[in-house]
Amino acid sequence: MKKHNFSSGPAILPQSVMEEAGKAVVDWNGMGLSLLEISHRSKEFVSVMEEAQQLTKELLNINDDYSVLFLTGGASSQFYMTAMNLLDKEETACYIDTGNWSAKAIKEAKIFGKIVEVASSKDKEYVYIPKGFTLPNEAKYLHITTNNTVQGTQFQEIPNVNVPLVADMSSDIFSRPIDIEKYGLIYAGAQKNMGPAGTTMVIVRKDLVGKLNREIPTMLNYKIHVDKGSMFNTPPVFPVFVSMLTLRWLKAQGGVEAIQKINEAKAKLLYDEIDSNPCFRGRVAVEDRSLMNVTFFAQTPELEKAFSEIAKANNISAINGYRTIGGFRASIYNAMPMESVEYLVKTMRDFAKQYA
Amino acid sequence: MKKHNFSSGPAILPQSVMEEAGKAVVDWNGMGLSLLEISHRSKEFVSVMEEAQQLTKELLNINDDYSVLFLTGGASSQFYMTAMNLLDKEETACYIDTGNWSAKAIKEAKIFGKIVEVASSKDKEYVYIPKGFTLPNEAKYLHITTNNTVQGTQFQEIPNVNVPLVADMSSDIFSRPIDIEKYGLIYAGAQKNMGPAGTTMVIVRKDLVGKLNREIPTMLNYKIHVDKGSMFNTPPVFPVFVSMLTLRWLKAQGGVEAIQKINEAKAKLLYDEIDSNPCFRGRVAVEDRSLMNVTFFAQTPELEKAFSEIAKANNISAINGYRTIGGFRASIYNAMPMESVEYLVKTMRDFAKQYA
Repeated sequence: MKKHNFSSGPAILPQSVMEEAGKAVVDWNGMGLSLLEISHRSKEFVSVMEEAQQLTKELLNINDDYSVLFLTGGASSQFYMTAMNLLDKEETACYIDTGNWSAKAIKEAKIFGKIVEVASSKDKEYVYIPKGFTLPNEAKYLHITTNNTVQGTQFQEIPNVNVPLVADMSSDIFSRPIDIEKYGLIYAGAQKNMGPAGTTMVIVRKDLVGKLNREIPTMLNYKIHVDKGSMFNTPPVFPVFVSMLTLRWLKAQGGVEAIQKINEAKAKLLYDEIDSNPCFRGRVAVEDRSLMNVTFFAQTPELEKAFSEIAKANNISAINGYRTIGGFRASIYNAMPMESVEYLVKTMRDFAKQYA
Repeated sequence: MKKHNFSSGPAILPQSVMEEAGKAVVDWNGMGLSLLEISHRSKEFVSVMEEAQQLTKELLNINDDYSVLFLTGGASSQFYMTAMNLLDKEETACYIDTGNWSAKAIKEAKIFGKIVEVASSKDKEYVYIPKGFTLPNEAKYLHITTNNTVQGTQFQEIPNVNVPLVADMSSDIFSRPIDIEKYGLIYAGAQKNMGPAGTTMVIVRKDLVGKLNREIPTMLNYKIHVDKGSMFNTPPVFPVFVSMLTLRWLKAQGGVEAIQKINEAKAKLLYDEIDSNPCFRGRVAVEDRSLMNVTFFAQTPELEKAFSEIAKANNISAINGYRTIGGFRASIYNAMPMESVEYLVKTMRDFAKQYA
């Protein structure tokens, strides 16, 4: 029996994608070869890369001012690559600190330029998204983390500023439409809402790259990857392939507008249960709640322990909160079926009947 | 029908590995979850990483002075990471230039320190391995590329020097025993002799890392990855898993000593045919021939075209030479069965009967 998988990442992917990917590992498209053993320069793989890029542009309505790259590594590599490629030592970039990952992005960026933290919700353990802030005139870009996987908060309004946004969208890319004009660069590790671990998508405005005096190693230089169409070196073939399959699946669901409605319905169902169930309470400011990572607590440590055990016994997987926060976190990414959210809600209701 | 796959990389993997990997993508070990959708912090994946590291140490007879890391990216990322982590700006490292990839390693290293090219075979289009060279006293390490995938040459004797070797073993790791004491650091992109694209193994002597004053981004700092057991961030889960399966397979074959004998027999069979067949000739110096990548030419352009077509028609895949060199290249890594080499040799013999 399949488990109901609420893992925060690596995370659930559509069942049909995993079945197709599993077959391709053994024999891809009846070629008599595994996807894993063919050249990345073969026309077959080149078409996978191109389709992944094209689907990204189509699904997010991205124009040709931007390049779509599938690089190696995770978002953690983009923490430094963004600043390394966009910010000279004497230039200033602004950051909003909304959680563990944005704090890490700030730390790495400081190696490469002047970093101003214009807002932070660290004062209240990151349970809200800061709203009011002023950018210094010299700001070159503003970095935000649109969804905070650990904390369970999400920017419901993307800030309007007069500099390009650089955004870590690792945990909510493709969950809702974006206004690409606001962004200079978007990055997203695949393993939350797009594919397996091992590739990170970078969407970058082409006129922003290759402008610094800094000497940048070839593999870390966005300009090289833009010029080579993300095929400078051997890309992470399998993670890119599975991401492409997931984007095909998303298109078949009706695209990001359609999936957004489903995401809203799934999140509403679960938050309504948290708010009405006497055994639980939400963790973060209501207006900043994430539609992707639903964080909540049981009312007592005893209830937490009991629900944790009951969830596990009922095939609900990976619902425990982040290690430094505790409680629960249900990650309900695009691929999470409504049925699994309904099943979780029903389990919470049954739990309340017994324990409230 | 399965093809005989002579691709230089991504390259052939054992059939049993691809079948097990394909199943794990759909449902891993009957867990009711795909390998792709579980946390990298789960005990199941942590044990995969640990087994991959342990098998590497066991197969290559590596002691605990060294750490085994499975990082993201390819060998191209190690071209700069090695120098970035091991060489201060004023320090000197030596490089031997034996082909396309070592030339790239030299280019990237120059960003971080003083690089002395102590020997090169570029004068003769890299068809041999330079033997005589002198290291300056100030050398901190000597970098070599043990096997040159593009050229078809291989160090049959590893140089004896009084500094640690830093070696790119991307295309011959696990093909023969190594004397680990000679090395400060070994790196190898998985996609030739170890696994699919998307991870690179780094074997590093622990006392060499974390010693520079340079400010290094966290993700690029070997010291961090050593201290975190290669689990600082989300590793490339699937490529690491498939690499681990391949190492299990290698152990079951009898380890590197056993596979070396098979590799020698496969290479001898093919080189003997090249040397005796009137339609073909080898490309590189006989004493420096690679046991992994067998490069050869047809005697005329007409014969080249004809054999290329006949190979393709006979299910022999990816045997054409590198684009700047032409001719043929048969990559016969560990996973290449003797039967496929015999089949290629028979095809060459039949070709000679018709065309010689």
